[in-house]
Amino acid sequence: MPKEQSQEYLNNLRHSCAHLLAASVVKLWPQAKNAIGPSIENGFYQDFDMGGTKISEADFPRIEKTMNEILQTWDNFQIREVSVKQAKMDFSWNPYKLALIDEFAGQGKTITETKQGSFLDLCRGGHLKHPKKEIKHFKLLSVAGAYWRGSEKNQMLTRIYGTCWPSKAELEAYLKMREEAEKRDHKKLGKELELFVFSDTVGTGLPLWTPKGSVIRRELERFIVDEEIKRGYLHVYTPDIAKLDLYKKSGHYPYYKESMYAPIKIEEDEFMLRPMSCPHHFELYLARHHSYRELPMRIAELVKLYRYEQSGELSGLMRVRTFCLADAHIIARKQQAEAEISGALDLIDFVCKTLGLKLGTDYRYRLSLGNRKDDKKYFKDDKSWDEAEAVLRKVLKKRKAPFFEAENEAAFYGPKIDIQMKNVNGKEDTAFTVQYDFVMPKRFKLSYTNESGADEEPIVVHRSSIGAVERIIALLIERYAGAFPVWLSPVQAAVLPISDKQVKYAQKIVDELRENDIRVDFYNRPESIGKKIREAEMQKVPYMLIVGEKEMKAKSVAVRARGQKDLGSIKLEKFIDKIEKEIKSKSL
Amino acid sequence: MPKEQSQEYLNNLRHSCAHLLAASVVKLWPQAKNAIGPSIENGFYQDFDMGGTKISEADFPRIEKTMNEILQTWDNFQIREVSVKQAKMDFSWNPYKLALIDEFAGQGKTITETKQGSFLDLCRGGHLKHPKKEIKHFKLLSVAGAYWRGSEKNQMLTRIYGTCWPSKAELEAYLKMREEAEKRDHKKLGKELELFVFSDTVGTGLPLWTPKGSVIRRELERFIVDEEIKRGYLHVYTPDIAKLDLYKKSGHYPYYKESMYAPIKIEEDEFMLRPMSCPHHFELYLARHHSYRELPMRIAELVKLYRYEQSGELSGLMRVRTFCLADAHIIARKQQAEAEISGALDLIDFVCKTLGLKLGTDYRYRLSLGNRKDDKKYFKDDKSWDEAEAVLRKVLKKRKAPFFEAENEAAFYGPKIDIQMKNVNGKEDTAFTVQYDFVMPKRFKLSYTNESGADEEPIVVHRSSIGAVERIIALLIERYAGAFPVWLSPVQAAVLPISDKQVKYAQKIVDELRENDIRVDFYNRPESIGKKIREAEMQKVPYMLIVGEKEMKAKSVAVRARGQKDLGSIKLEKFIDKIEKEIKSKSL
Repeated sequence: MPKEQSQEYLNNLRHSCAHLLAASVVKLWPQAKNAIGPSIENGFYQDFDMGGTKISEADFPRIEKTMNEILQTWDNFQIREVSVKQAKMDFSWNPYKLALIDEFAGQGKTITETKQGSFLDLCRGGHLKHPKKEIKHFKLLSVAGAYWRGSEKNQMLTRIYGTCWPSKAELEAYLKMREEAEKRDHKKLGKELELFVFSDTVGTGLPLWTPKGSVIRRELERFIVDEEIKRGYLHVYTPDIAKLDLYKKSGHYPYYKESMYAPIKIEEDEFMLRPMSCPHHFELYLARHHSYRELPMRIAELVKLYRYEQSGELSGLMRVRTFCLADAHIIARKQQAEAEISGALDLIDFVCKTLGLKLGTDYRYRLSLGNRKDDKKYFKDDKSWDEAEAVLRKVLKKRKAPFFEAENEAAFYGPKIDIQMKNVNGKEDTAFTVQYDFVMPKRFKLSYTNESGADEEPIVVHRSSIGAVERIIALLIERYAGAFPVWLSPVQAAVLPISDKQVKYAQKIVDELRENDIRVDFYNRPESIGKKIREAEMQKVPYMLIVGEKEMKAKSVAVRARGQKDLGSIKLEKFIDKIEKEIKSKSL
Repeated sequence: MPKEQSQEYLNNLRHSCAHLLAASVVKLWPQAKNAIGPSIENGFYQDFDMGGTKISEADFPRIEKTMNEILQTWDNFQIREVSVKQAKMDFSWNPYKLALIDEFAGQGKTITETKQGSFLDLCRGGHLKHPKKEIKHFKLLSVAGAYWRGSEKNQMLTRIYGTCWPSKAELEAYLKMREEAEKRDHKKLGKELELFVFSDTVGTGLPLWTPKGSVIRRELERFIVDEEIKRGYLHVYTPDIAKLDLYKKSGHYPYYKESMYAPIKIEEDEFMLRPMSCPHHFELYLARHHSYRELPMRIAELVKLYRYEQSGELSGLMRVRTFCLADAHIIARKQQAEAEISGALDLIDFVCKTLGLKLGTDYRYRLSLGNRKDDKKYFKDDKSWDEAEAVLRKVLKKRKAPFFEAENEAAFYGPKIDIQMKNVNGKEDTAFTVQYDFVMPKRFKLSYTNESGADEEPIVVHRSSIGAVERIIALLIERYAGAFPVWLSPVQAAVLPISDKQVKYAQKIVDELRENDIRVDFYNRPESIGKKIREAEMQKVPYMLIVGEKEMKAKSVAVRARGQKDLGSIKLEKFIDKIEKEIKSKSL
């Protein structure tokens, strides 16, 4: 791989550029104190305590100019090891660096400083050899608030994001993609289209779904529940809280403690908001004995789950502190595992196809394996790991679909197949997962009676189908750029009378559409038709039904489809027929 | 009112009978210690610490015999005031009475003892004048465990329930009604029909819905959501937790603290499981400004709520620690209040009618009023109370439906109309409610712009439509005696092949029914047709499709409707047509 394309080189390039940004801001605002400045995907950021001064994107040209000037003095990065005492003396003016020095010293790490030009920084390395020659194609992108160490309990700092690339072409391509992604940003569109809001009084990371956003959520939830029931899943309801004992029994507690909400203590009991639902489903299974005839038993639920994410990691609907997962646990005989895993992947493929996500381009399978040498992270049972991994590999090979293998990505109770989905930024993340579990059945003493009347231990397949509702909707908002397919659109048709004279006729049309369970908005305010059309376009309504003198006389509607030209005037029944077909077929 | 029928007389009769039971059990089991023994609706109970001995219904004849014997020595109840010291000496053998003595003394109450025959008891009174003559028609009913003082942290005692009536006819009528109610008991039927279970590891009072029970819940939830949307409600999703600040802002916290779960403390924040949803809906409303054109805004949600009930008060699905309420808050202009309250009652009437509950016989309206003199319990604003109560009264009068008024039953923020529902025991309880609120809009500073561009304060109507899903299902299980109407039945049809020879044909029928979204059970095990029919009857399946040689040849099914004779053999399509119509029309 040529140097310019290795991830390590890109990281060094961007991290070096973050140093350059730090030097420039400190030069322009001498009271500024630089905190951390790592490379991130596609760029870097640098945090500053600006000492009360506000910085904005309007300052970027000036900062970029200074960066180019300073760069001329940066021939290389000089790294040196120093004593804690020396480091503390060098950075006595900067409380963030002092905190880092204490932290590193506490962990027994060596303290290193780096000097380039006249700028001294605290850094453990990862730089370019010749910054002056190599840093060329960079750009500052945005400025945001960010808490020191990601915790809202700390000081709010100013974070400047930037990007840097080896070539001009790459920089430009990235900026273009970014512009497109920004237009599609689900937080921005969520506000414009009024899909969800947050309230400080309710709490950070706890979304409140507006009526419009709730339509999308309800449609998706019903779609997946109905589809799963058709495929033999048994949908249940179990409580979102349970005694701590349950998570101790499952063994989740020590592993998940960090991301769980604190316990609710009442007298001697401790209740927990659940971070997963498998233990609940196992308790339901245990309510009575089962026969092999009942297996596989596919217990499914739309579960509300609670994980306490750091406030710095929260992001719109993508990363929240409570979410609703289309979850299931398939309790099956060992010999049924292959068919059940394959069936779960079939369902995922079906769901993705319905939503317009393509296998190969939008998502691919990852076979996430354990590590026989890591007994701490993974339950020790080499034979079961070998068997389970072989089953998953066999399933994937049979599908003849693109997949890759990744070590050390399994769950603690078994290997899994992850569905790796690309978002509009080109970033790949795990969207859904199908897991093979041979540990929980032992912990919960799950069993069934086989053909000869003896007790046998089942295996469990943990799987999600549509993932977390919050997350998939965030992804879909960005994918569709807010223009949802008709079946998911909060408003499916808008009725726009051209003038007051058609309001009465238009009302009849609205009523008839509503009687046919079509979601309609009536644009009956005394505004120009041009303004009404612009508003319906902004709201990305799939169909505008424009009603003028001509339509009133002909008892028809003039149909304008989203992003297309006028479809002409047609009878209302014909339109209802057309839209109903689209809704029923979930056409994209 | 004649003496025999006054509630006070009935209470005295039953409480006296509880003393008699105490005396008899202590006589038969000298180590037994009697705790409390109050009169309750339709009877009484008496708690005992049996000192390790078990008592069962088999002991009842012996106890009843002893009661009759002792009764002959009870000419009257002799009440006397005693000092704490004297009382403690008299009951030194009984730790429960000692605890009560301490409690009463701590509250500055007088301690009274009562003596009848040779039996001394601690009691504050409420007895018959001539027990020997008046106690005649009693019966012991059941025995159960009950914690001392209703808390699971305390000693488990033995509770004996009994009943007592002024006449033989009344006793017999009650026993008959009780027998019928027992057959319909939702806890018993819930188990037999596998509708819900509980798990000690998950927690007391936290139901887990089985696949079958979940069908009923899902159907009811979708029914109410769809019906509300049709009626212009905006269904939303808001989080089940929020920061404590929210409930302080709403003013609920001091009032509701006792029944709320303890806070979840994370760093400096405290999160609460929500006991109600109004504050969430107000926060959603506050996300942007609103115009009078958007009002009334009917914000609805299926909300999970959390109230920490005492373990002694929990009862199946009727009284739980988390429940799902079909809740709504209508934000309206004052002049819209009447129409909105009337609309909410229309919806309730529609829901009840759909479920087979009749206004007048099954439920009636209660106008629950405030009290102008009680400023502590009710927000002080006489004018608003007068206005609101007048609006509610007007709505009820216009409906020409039976209603009665009850003082001191309002919410702290305004008066309400309660829908008082009778259960199979004849007991009346509040099932749903429609409340007029003029306080919360002030606390949350809710507002809207009126026609002239000025800000106005709306009022809020809080209402439930189908109540808590858990509670209405408990009520319906008892009402239907488990035989749910077809649209709500977990299994709508069972296919029963007479012998193995018809299994293949029967499978085709099962497949076709499933393709038509009919919920089917396939009774394909090698058992006699008689056994299969009995099982389907036990499971209260609305339709059995029996398939023998004849049906296979004629490509038909022999239909047997629940509780009816055979409907004869018909073509499958005809049956599908029939059952689909019943499902669609929600026929009872």
